[in-house]
Amino acid sequence: MADLEEVLPALAAEMAERSDRGEVATYIPQLGKIDPKRFGIAVALTDGRVVTAGDADEAFSIQSISKIFTLTLALGKVGDALWRRVGREPSGNPFNSIVQLERELGIPRNPFINAGAIVVTDVLLADHQPREAIGEILRFIQFLTDDDTIIIDRDVAASERATGFRNFALANYMRSFGNLTHEPEMALGVYFHHCAIAMSARQLALAGRFLSHGGLNPATGHSVVSAERARRILALMLTCGHYDGSGDFAFRVGIPGKSGVGGGILGIVPGVASMAVWSPGLNENGNSKLGSIALEKLAKIMNWSIFAP
Amino acid sequence: MADLEEVLPALAAEMAERSDRGEVATYIPQLGKIDPKRFGIAVALTDGRVVTAGDADEAFSIQSISKIFTLTLALGKVGDALWRRVGREPSGNPFNSIVQLERELGIPRNPFINAGAIVVTDVLLADHQPREAIGEILRFIQFLTDDDTIIIDRDVAASERATGFRNFALANYMRSFGNLTHEPEMALGVYFHHCAIAMSARQLALAGRFLSHGGLNPATGHSVVSAERARRILALMLTCGHYDGSGDFAFRVGIPGKSGVGGGILGIVPGVASMAVWSPGLNENGNSKLGSIALEKLAKIMNWSIFAP
Amino acid sequence: MADLEEVLPALAAEMAERSDRGEVATYIPQLGKIDPKRFGIAVALTDGRVVTAGDADEAFSIQSISKIFTLTLALGKVGDALWRRVGREPSGNPFNSIVQLERELGIPRNPFINAGAIVVTDVLLADHQPREAIGEILRFIQFLTDDDTIIIDRDVAASERATGFRNFALANYMRSFGNLTHEPEMALGVYFHHCAIAMSARQLALAGRFLSHGGLNPATGHSVVSAERARRILALMLTCGHYDGSGDFAFRVGIPGKSGVGGGILGIVPGVASMAVWSPGLNENGNSKLGSIALEKLAKIMNWSIFAP
Amino acid sequence: MADLEEVLPALAAEMAERSDRGEVATYIPQLGKIDPKRFGIAVALTDGRVVTAGDADEAFSIQSISKIFTLTLALGKVGDALWRRVGREPSGNPFNSIVQLERELGIPRNPFINAGAIVVTDVLLADHQPREAIGEILRFIQFLTDDDTIIIDRDVAASERATGFRNFALANYMRSFGNLTHEPEMALGVYFHHCAIAMSARQLALAGRFLSHGGLNPATGHSVVSAERARRILALMLTCGHYDGSGDFAFRVGIPGKSGVGGGILGIVPGVASMAVWSPGLNENGNSKLGSIALEKLAKIMNWSIFAP
Repeated sequence: MADLEEVLPALAAEMAERSDRGEVATYIPQLGKIDPKRFGIAVALTDGRVVTAGDADEAFSIQSISKIFTLTLALGKVGDALWRRVGREPSGNPFNSIVQLERELGIPRNPFINAGAIVVTDVLLADHQPREAIGEILRFIQFLTDDDTIIIDRDVAASERATGFRNFALANYMRSFGNLTHEPEMALGVYFHHCAIAMSARQLALAGRFLSHGGLNPATGHSVVSAERARRILALMLTCGHYDGSGDFAFRVGIPGKSGVGGGILGIVPGVASMAVWSPGLNENGNSKLGSIALEKLAKIMNWSIFAP
Repeated sequence: MADLEEVLPALAAEMAERSDRGEVATYIPQLGKIDPKRFGIAVALTDGRVVTAGDADEAFSIQSISKIFTLTLALGKVGDALWRRVGREPSGNPFNSIVQLERELGIPRNPFINAGAIVVTDVLLADHQPREAIGEILRFIQFLTDDDTIIIDRDVAASERATGFRNFALANYMRSFGNLTHEPEMALGVYFHHCAIAMSARQLALAGRFLSHGGLNPATGHSVVSAERARRILALMLTCGHYDGSGDFAFRVGIPGKSGVGGGILGIVPGVASMAVWSPGLNENGNSKLGSIALEKLAKIMNWSIFAP
Repeated sequence: MADLEEVLPALAAEMAERSDRGEVATYIPQLGKIDPKRFGIAVALTDGRVVTAGDADEAFSIQSISKIFTLTLALGKVGDALWRRVGREPSGNPFNSIVQLERELGIPRNPFINAGAIVVTDVLLADHQPREAIGEILRFIQFLTDDDTIIIDRDVAASERATGFRNFALANYMRSFGNLTHEPEMALGVYFHHCAIAMSARQLALAGRFLSHGGLNPATGHSVVSAERARRILALMLTCGHYDGSGDFAFRVGIPGKSGVGGGILGIVPGVASMAVWSPGLNENGNSKLGSIALEKLAKIMNWSIFAP
Repeated sequence: MADLEEVLPALAAEMAERSDRGEVATYIPQLGKIDPKRFGIAVALTDGRVVTAGDADEAFSIQSISKIFTLTLALGKVGDALWRRVGREPSGNPFNSIVQLERELGIPRNPFINAGAIVVTDVLLADHQPREAIGEILRFIQFLTDDDTIIIDRDVAASERATGFRNFALANYMRSFGNLTHEPEMALGVYFHHCAIAMSARQLALAGRFLSHGGLNPATGHSVVSAERARRILALMLTCGHYDGSGDFAFRVGIPGKSGVGGGILGIVPGVASMAVWSPGLNENGNSKLGSIALEKLAKIMNWSIFAP
């Protein structure tokens, strides 16, 4: 196996020179201000080592990657009852499509498109005020990372709220079918805040370790989720983690991953590594362009693929 | 690891007793005549052993499972140029949907829905008469299985042809966009014949070994496809192999698979096993009902999941 | 020509006996309380006579019929510039569909589906507070009817507001495309109020006279809109006035009409009559069931059709 | 009333000078060869006069205008039973869309989109060989025009057949739902031939007279269809006669019309005139660009609108 300590810096250097970096998301104004030259990568191995390169300690907006953590919490709360309100199929449509909701009577296709993640957030609001629900999500991520300096970027949250008309449309639409139990305003308040959590690639890689460890937190040895649930979350990441580019990511990279429009991707090699990459420019499917390429190259060099013998 | 020699017979016995067997496909009249009580399973391990139970030596119509073999052949012929004519994303629609083709200008979502498989078949017709293309596909499967008794059930092929109006619609529709280079009649002639190949679960498990072996034919040690191509075919099977139930199969079973409306499923555990199951009754997504359940139980008992550490 | 004074009472009597009255709309709770046995009809002839039968003086919620009056006002404000924000084509979809908006980038198909009427309302908010815009619409209807006792039923408006999640979805969705210039909350506040205007069949028939009179208010002889604009509003009523049942209404009744889920329909025979019918039970397209039948019968008896020589 | 003898030549002269003539349809190769400079117009008044200007005696391919005549024949054969197989609503989609058919299980929206017209043609095949059905349609048009020199342009028919993959898709698709009783090949054989009928504007205006005359053939005084059926065909023309531009045509021109991709439009002013215009260049909806404009101007000058008092 190639030596990660050599591979990652070389990869970061190669990425630094590329000029085809994609476009930084501008529909959330705060995200549009990020320097597209940033690139960071971090790999947390199951043996405890963490290897990084580039801007791996600079915090960025994790955006939709937060949907992994909210899904984990919601499954902990209501278990498989969640699947009565959210599907488990790839959507075949962009991340914020509303068409599918009309045809399928308000049941979102999966928990990683916006509509599905809003329902997941609605679950987390049960018996909670929005402030408490936000706090629960943040503390869960801090716990996974063992780092209580992680915070929510309230400027980003406010920026999303001010321009998030399509998410308001989705929430109201599901409410009209009875698949939202709180006011759209409340569910989206929590949703915009958890999307605005800021983490570095290093922190994100650490937070994902329970998924590469069969559900265990390797720092403590305690179970975060059951081994079966960890596998199932990974299956959802593989089939639905990159919106309408999920099939291509599985084809090229061959590992479960979840992207965010902030330019981050969390990738999991079961039993081997949790890794996070960050490059703010996006490809045509709204996934980090260089991040996807870097993970593809890294997986190839390290021979990391869930489809390999 | 549990002992397959004990597990499979017990599984077959359990399945024999279930009354919720789904509905046998009737839109192809020949398939509607099959006894829904049939159940067979076969596992070809990478160590060379083949374990079976139930009706594992009875031939059934492999139908869409043939799409794995035609895809493999087409990639051998034109390589990645294939992807200019077929996508690699889950469709989010039933297997024979035409809606997506209108929106995406005649480019099918992936090679495992009918429209995509028809384009793949069109590729195999280059420089060939239909009869030659059919022969090439059949010989490839005979070669993989090392069994030249495998045949095409011409009654099934004729039955599909007589009622395959929707496939004629798909073919003509793609032809209108220039994404079919032969007459619909010709491409579908080949398509209906390769779907009508009849194999037993044992034969099918043997035919899939190259995918569990990193592209090698374990009987000969020779390469069928490169290791990378084997991984990529598996990725497509995972994300697209069960039509609009692909996400659910990945979630429940956790391995790449490909189903056919004849009631067969081929499942691959990389580095471990190629397995085939057959039970003619289908669930609401058109996938074998008991076959899916049996694979889920088997994967759980054997701890076979590509998402496990 | 048959004598209306005899025809209308006979028609009302016939309708009173029918048991197939459709279903009263229940998604707006206040509307669900209406007695389905109600039936009223009023015809305002261009010679000044008004003939009525049944519950013609009982006020009901005009709902979407108000969209004729807001469209008229908006065209007066911005003229043909309105058509940059709203189309003029039948939608081929139910009244509250959001699918078409995604495909056509936030431009509603026509001003009579909900999304289009919300944009029209947005136009009326320019330089106005919501309260002023509501007042302007109400006064316009009072002016057309020459009856300042017409009011808004605030219970109905509040009821719609509390359950109007789908309209909030539509408004937010269009806002995300920049096709709403005010906050959804504001535009919908006005929208829910003008839908909640309560009028009797007699009042409604009087309010529609300018459309049967080539744009003139027959009571005063003054122009409300130009003759060309009157014709064009009638063309929109014919092609789009009954949602996804517009073609059928044109086919059966043969005159321009506009329905509301309160059970009212306004129908116009150019040069001859403005007529209003009310029966609260709706057919499967959300249009008054007996109202449609009564207009079809009346048009046949009186030989009123814009398609007749 | 303005004098048509002066109006038409002036209109033809004005149209001759315009350079914005749209694009000639090229998807049927034979049609692509037509000179876009052609313009002809003919008006057959109910008083028996026929006024023409421009290339009014040059034959062109009537294409979809033939759907009026096949609909009339099919209603004569099966009456209202036709509406169990074809809808009466505007489609909200382009003329050859297949999306709606999937959602509505093979029932086309109306008889004027391609799918609907193919079903209508299927009706005409009952108890007939294709050759006989084609003959019946041609003779009906010859009878209406009192001109047996009208022929089918077999080069155009062959050209459509060779490139009509999308129509083959529609036909096969409806066949899969059981809404086509003959082989697609047969129904389309007849369809392509009746679309290829060649007529001059003068002939077409004469053929449409029964629709402006309440169903009577003014040349003979005999009934072609009942007055009610004539009105209903006109209603369908108004709501569905210009595909996805039907609403706009009703809004601008204000009379029932039916267009064809050969550049012809037949327009009817009930009780007044049947008129035909021809200009081969099409607008973005596939309707004659200058033809639409000419009819709009003519209707305005003559004050011809079914929405006028």
